[in-house]
Amino acid sequence: MVRIRTTELARHAGERVLLRGWFHHQRELANVTFLILRDGSGTAQIALSRSRAAALSEISLESAIEVVGQAVADERAPGGVEVREATVSVIAPSVAPMPFELGRPSLGAALPFVLDHAGIALRHPQRRAAFRLMDASVAAYRECLRAQGFTEVFTPKIVATATESGANCFRVDYFGQPAYLAQSPQLYKQILVGVFERVFEVGPVFRAEPHDTPRHLNEYVSLDAEMGFIGDHHDVMAVLESVIRAMASAVSGHEDADRAGAILPIRAPAPFPTLHFTEAQDLLSREFGEEVRAEPDLAPAHERWLGAWTLREHGSDFLFVIGFPMSKRPFYTHPDPVRSAYSNSFDLLFRGLELATGGQRLHAFADYEAAMAARTIELAPFAGYLEAFRHGMPPHGGFAIGVERWIQQLVGASNLRDTTLFPRDIRRLVP
Amino acid sequence: MVRIRTTELARHAGERVLLRGWFHHQRELANVTFLILRDGSGTAQIALSRSRAAALSEISLESAIEVVGQAVADERAPGGVEVREATVSVIAPSVAPMPFELGRPSLGAALPFVLDHAGIALRHPQRRAAFRLMDASVAAYRECLRAQGFTEVFTPKIVATATESGANCFRVDYFGQPAYLAQSPQLYKQILVGVFERVFEVGPVFRAEPHDTPRHLNEYVSLDAEMGFIGDHHDVMAVLESVIRAMASAVSGHEDADRAGAILPIRAPAPFPTLHFTEAQDLLSREFGEEVRAEPDLAPAHERWLGAWTLREHGSDFLFVIGFPMSKRPFYTHPDPVRSAYSNSFDLLFRGLELATGGQRLHAFADYEAAMAARTIELAPFAGYLEAFRHGMPPHGGFAIGVERWIQQLVGASNLRDTTLFPRDIRRLVP
Repeated sequence: MVRIRTTELARHAGERVLLRGWFHHQRELANVTFLILRDGSGTAQIALSRSRAAALSEISLESAIEVVGQAVADERAPGGVEVREATVSVIAPSVAPMPFELGRPSLGAALPFVLDHAGIALRHPQRRAAFRLMDASVAAYRECLRAQGFTEVFTPKIVATATESGANCFRVDYFGQPAYLAQSPQLYKQILVGVFERVFEVGPVFRAEPHDTPRHLNEYVSLDAEMGFIGDHHDVMAVLESVIRAMASAVSGHEDADRAGAILPIRAPAPFPTLHFTEAQDLLSREFGEEVRAEPDLAPAHERWLGAWTLREHGSDFLFVIGFPMSKRPFYTHPDPVRSAYSNSFDLLFRGLELATGGQRLHAFADYEAAMAARTIELAPFAGYLEAFRHGMPPHGGFAIGVERWIQQLVGASNLRDTTLFPRDIRRLVP
Repeated sequence: MVRIRTTELARHAGERVLLRGWFHHQRELANVTFLILRDGSGTAQIALSRSRAAALSEISLESAIEVVGQAVADERAPGGVEVREATVSVIAPSVAPMPFELGRPSLGAALPFVLDHAGIALRHPQRRAAFRLMDASVAAYRECLRAQGFTEVFTPKIVATATESGANCFRVDYFGQPAYLAQSPQLYKQILVGVFERVFEVGPVFRAEPHDTPRHLNEYVSLDAEMGFIGDHHDVMAVLESVIRAMASAVSGHEDADRAGAILPIRAPAPFPTLHFTEAQDLLSREFGEEVRAEPDLAPAHERWLGAWTLREHGSDFLFVIGFPMSKRPFYTHPDPVRSAYSNSFDLLFRGLELATGGQRLHAFADYEAAMAARTIELAPFAGYLEAFRHGMPPHGGFAIGVERWIQQLVGASNLRDTTLFPRDIRRLVP
């Protein structure tokens, strides 16, 4: 007898079926006991008569079980089919009290406790569903870029030099030599524009920033892309917009969208509204009655307000802010050719949170020499990177999306830790 | 005028075209000079009359250039179409002598020099093509697993405890706390079997082994998978075999297969031949006339001989060796229920090199307690991992494929560094 998934049950009404999964929940009515079996795909309702239900008393919740019974159409059952006349046997027992009741609509525990028991908490259907949406989002990201001629690459995470600034790098002991964990694949993806023209990477990045906020983690998954032969950053923004649309489409039609609590629809008018950094500051100064025009960056509260503004004014969950001041952007940033204090860079806000960042990069070797000298960055440690710019590097740019933030905003989670499988922060290194 | 890719040129014969790319090579004949332009997709031949070719003397090889001209069908041209009456302009010049002549069939330089200049060496069409095959292989891997109900996951690379053995872990300073780089996602993917049933991950793994061999690196990309509700390791091997077939199919029909020097066909009879470890040792002892039956593992020379044997005897590039001794396998390994000194594990050899390893894992909590006690591994640091096994973990298993080795064997490279974009070894941390 071939095992079927719970999501296939509706197709097997009238047949004898074999299910495997976990003893998720139990509900007792007067004459019937409902056992809810959870497998990797969903849940199924097993209706047990009083005599058959007696055996359940010896099976603890969350044991791995096997159920053999008759699939019967019944419109009262979730999904329209339940299993009756079933025998339940244990594959692997649960041998300790559970930290949560997974059968409840939510875990009902404080976040630190949830994260301490992440391996079990993730079994909750709502939490699990969010990561199914992440899986679908990343697949859509790759597929969209592949269709536009991008090649997937894998670049090293142990590096000899800090990518952007040494202060925020984790140090690694590399056979007695000092080394760092890569803050981003930035330098490698630029080198690889010279090879493949268009590249993307999905991988971990590491930031040793001692912050403790709901929107930062010290390790996260970055969806990176970089492309050559661009006019300026607007070409990069067009590609970013295309992948965001692909990701939005993947989650909007996903079978787990409701279960994850996804806030739909995702409002994404084409093209995304765009404000120059100085325009955003004008709006903020007017709204908040405080002078923010001397600030080189946007504060989180400002991002939230801009998110509300763009929804109100443009019916959009997305807003591009372009032209950030050069002073706060990394050395490889390309200036605005007209206003050189500003850059050909952008942030993409999603529902008032920075989701992605990117821009046009310098491409001429002489410009790197000048930019690094101005910031007193030594050239020698970057020799393998700079070599690419000596040999015909075309105008290029790229972006990076934080995928956990994408899911956080999608489901309206108040903390990035809710949408990270096993988060790493200044106080959390386990599980 | 819209830019076209070199690989699209054949479709535009008779039209005026715009190409962008790099000045790859130049060949002078009596009355014509051929400029070879390389872009991200391939190369195109630009035929220049003597008067037009004069301008080339001011353009250095590997400059980024733009070519506008007439696409003309000519059967003597590679691909059947060349560009004539062209004007060539420089987008970004190459400003230093090149370390290699990329227009030659091979780089003709020693590997350390090639790796020192990896950013430029990778532009060589043959080297680049190998990584296009890697991209296609990984895409096929994911697609094949997705179709079988696997979910992609992203697990942390900074961990508090060594996965398998502390000796071979890189240490990280994590805000003053000791931490490690994950040797594999093993513990996390097992936990996640309890969540998703079937998971996979593509990501970096880190091994601080001070070896210096052509087949090892200290950081590489691991294609990991793990699945629940299995009978034993043979169910895992069947899934592994399916993904290997998908990867073989993706590279066999790939437009870059020839250019990369892929050795085709890939001989993959179904099912892959399988030898028990003890059978393999019997064969080896007979062949080599030396007693290897006391050895707990296979030596590289033995793997090579088994590769030749399986090709000769079974017409196969693949061989499963199953049942390795428990003594050399990690603590979570499931023993063979009949011969408990051996394990329900396997290695998959591809053309005589270990390509993948895997097996059935322990799933009962009590078995973990016993196995870890026997190896004097403390339980406390593994609390978050072990919790999963207290709560109904079904029989499960998985595997990990080294993707650089896959490409190495596919193209017959003598060194794994040839099929790694930016390799990391005991002496190499740049570029």
